[in-house]
Amino acid sequence: MSAIRYELIKTCAQTGARLGRVHTPHGVIETPTFMPVGTQATVKGISPEELKELNAHIILSNTYHLFLRPGHELVREAGGLHKMMNWDRSILTDSGGFQVFSLSENRKITEEGVHFRSHLNGDKLFLSPEVAMDVQNSLGSDIMMAFDECPPYPATYEYVKQSTERTSRWAERCLKAHRRPHDQGLFGIVQGGMHADLRKMSALDLTSLDFPGYAMGGLSVGEPKHLMYEMLEETVPLLPSNKPRYLMGVGSPDCLVEGSMRGIDMFDCVLPTRIARNGTAMTSQGRLVVKNAKYVSDFSPLDPECSCYACRNYSRAYIRHLIRADEMFGLRLTTIHNLHFLVHLMEQVREAIRQDRLQDFRDEFFEKYGMASNESGF
Amino acid sequence: MSAIRYELIKTCAQTGARLGRVHTPHGVIETPTFMPVGTQATVKGISPEELKELNAHIILSNTYHLFLRPGHELVREAGGLHKMMNWDRSILTDSGGFQVFSLSENRKITEEGVHFRSHLNGDKLFLSPEVAMDVQNSLGSDIMMAFDECPPYPATYEYVKQSTERTSRWAERCLKAHRRPHDQGLFGIVQGGMHADLRKMSALDLTSLDFPGYAMGGLSVGEPKHLMYEMLEETVPLLPSNKPRYLMGVGSPDCLVEGSMRGIDMFDCVLPTRIARNGTAMTSQGRLVVKNAKYVSDFSPLDPECSCYACRNYSRAYIRHLIRADEMFGLRLTTIHNLHFLVHLMEQVREAIRQDRLQDFRDEFFEKYGMASNESGF
Repeated sequence: MSAIRYELIKTCAQTGARLGRVHTPHGVIETPTFMPVGTQATVKGISPEELKELNAHIILSNTYHLFLRPGHELVREAGGLHKMMNWDRSILTDSGGFQVFSLSENRKITEEGVHFRSHLNGDKLFLSPEVAMDVQNSLGSDIMMAFDECPPYPATYEYVKQSTERTSRWAERCLKAHRRPHDQGLFGIVQGGMHADLRKMSALDLTSLDFPGYAMGGLSVGEPKHLMYEMLEETVPLLPSNKPRYLMGVGSPDCLVEGSMRGIDMFDCVLPTRIARNGTAMTSQGRLVVKNAKYVSDFSPLDPECSCYACRNYSRAYIRHLIRADEMFGLRLTTIHNLHFLVHLMEQVREAIRQDRLQDFRDEFFEKYGMASNESGF
Repeated sequence: MSAIRYELIKTCAQTGARLGRVHTPHGVIETPTFMPVGTQATVKGISPEELKELNAHIILSNTYHLFLRPGHELVREAGGLHKMMNWDRSILTDSGGFQVFSLSENRKITEEGVHFRSHLNGDKLFLSPEVAMDVQNSLGSDIMMAFDECPPYPATYEYVKQSTERTSRWAERCLKAHRRPHDQGLFGIVQGGMHADLRKMSALDLTSLDFPGYAMGGLSVGEPKHLMYEMLEETVPLLPSNKPRYLMGVGSPDCLVEGSMRGIDMFDCVLPTRIARNGTAMTSQGRLVVKNAKYVSDFSPLDPECSCYACRNYSRAYIRHLIRADEMFGLRLTTIHNLHFLVHLMEQVREAIRQDRLQDFRDEFFEKYGMASNESGF
């Protein structure tokens, strides 16, 4: 029996989006869902209790960062990531593949793995399918990701083809190296760049290996949105309907809705927490830059339609003051708000699927958020 | 009827320390008490709910900072400081006197008040007894402080004498300018530098004006501790026993105990929050610099005897990781811990007074904290 089980509840008659549940060793996640990112074993600025209050059921943490600092052996000694960070709900860890290509220095890819230098201190390090499994087994996440290469965008067809084939070989090595399949589920990552035939090849390679879940990687890397949606449309139908599907690194409100409409169950992104730290709030009326002078004496909440802790108790004027005065509490409030916004958006998406009206919800939401309906996919 | 009322419950037979209650428009404060500092309308990094959980009943906020940013008119428009910052317990605001002398630039003192330039943007500003009252009336704090000059240390006898006499004249002007005596209590500040006779003169001047409470200002400004204790011993007995007594800017654990033994009821200091942000925890065994390498795999709490949120849920190893990784949550945990430590210390002081054994408690506490008993006052 796999550590991860997907339960399909229903499909939206209007869009084909899936309402479901992902069962993990640390609880049940209603899907489609958004996962807040806690890169360094903490979601920047906020507590596990606050994550629970805003109704997050799963968070993501980064293998690359924890491998570098504090080190996976220390996390294992601490009793695993859940215990160390005081989070008893589900955790997904990525494989380190994405960061090793975006953050590290002097990297060299071989069939065996990737040699690179730490972006923190220049140390020579090595990640491979086997190391990535060892690290994630030490972290003890509920969902682990196979070690992959995320090819750059744009890249030549030939490069992406070779990279994608290697990612499939690495996926097989990950399955073999995984030491805790009984209590940690390993997802395969579909790559293939922006080439539909390579995406299909990757999906077929990976599904033949029978992972308990599949991710779409290498998207939202700079390509136009319509291309990302096209890749989803080409690939998602090839994935088994009894397994969860995770679109990696995607978290803008429009993409969460559009991705759900294309059969995606799980999303993660640093966007809500990153823009929060820059004083930008996601609201039902679109983005709001609370630092702007026009909010100086605006005593309404960030989003009058929101029921989060920040909106129940604090005004735009106060949050603006805190951020201008470099006070941590301001960033905490905007972070709580943005995460609540996306978690709540997914609750609305699930309700719309339940009512077979996700297309209608999408149109209403886009109009209110200030995205013209015909901008879909662009 | 004054907005502030002091109720003396009992006096410690062993030391003369006072167990009491300060009644304010926003609740009752058991004394002796420690007040966390929320300079810019927030206690750095933590929420009002967290302050309540660690049992804080009164916080301090700074008139000088709020006068500069966001401005007291904005706070008044927001419905006052309590409402703006979502804190429904008591607030004490200082007068701006201390900061105008320690932070501002190009200050010029006249009988009328102080001309200075903002340390934020160089704006020309003016504070006087009347302005300080207007600002604090706008903030709506439960306890306001009279506008004073805090003379430098060391300073000539003649300078301190003239300054202290002016502070008394300013105190009288504060009483006259105060517009909300029914719901805000105004405390006088005893100055006089390190000169016992000037301290006495100041105390007599101020008590003749009949404030609802008195503060000792201009201490802990660089003088040796024995001198501070000497000034307290010379002055506190001159203050009426039916009014609260507040020692400004003092918050090291030893001084809280020693000050209580000399009849002080209220204390405030940025020390616990400031050193927390530097990764230093106050513990029952003394200071602990959690960033140090020796805690890398120490999975015990900051203080095994502590029951705060940080100590119940997180290890030294995890907090060390967070602080090294520049994660806000680490500073939040050390801040919660340090504030809890001092608030809890005052709970222990009150219990010791109740049992007429504060001297014994002091000796036990000092020994455990690593301060030799004969260091008292030095």
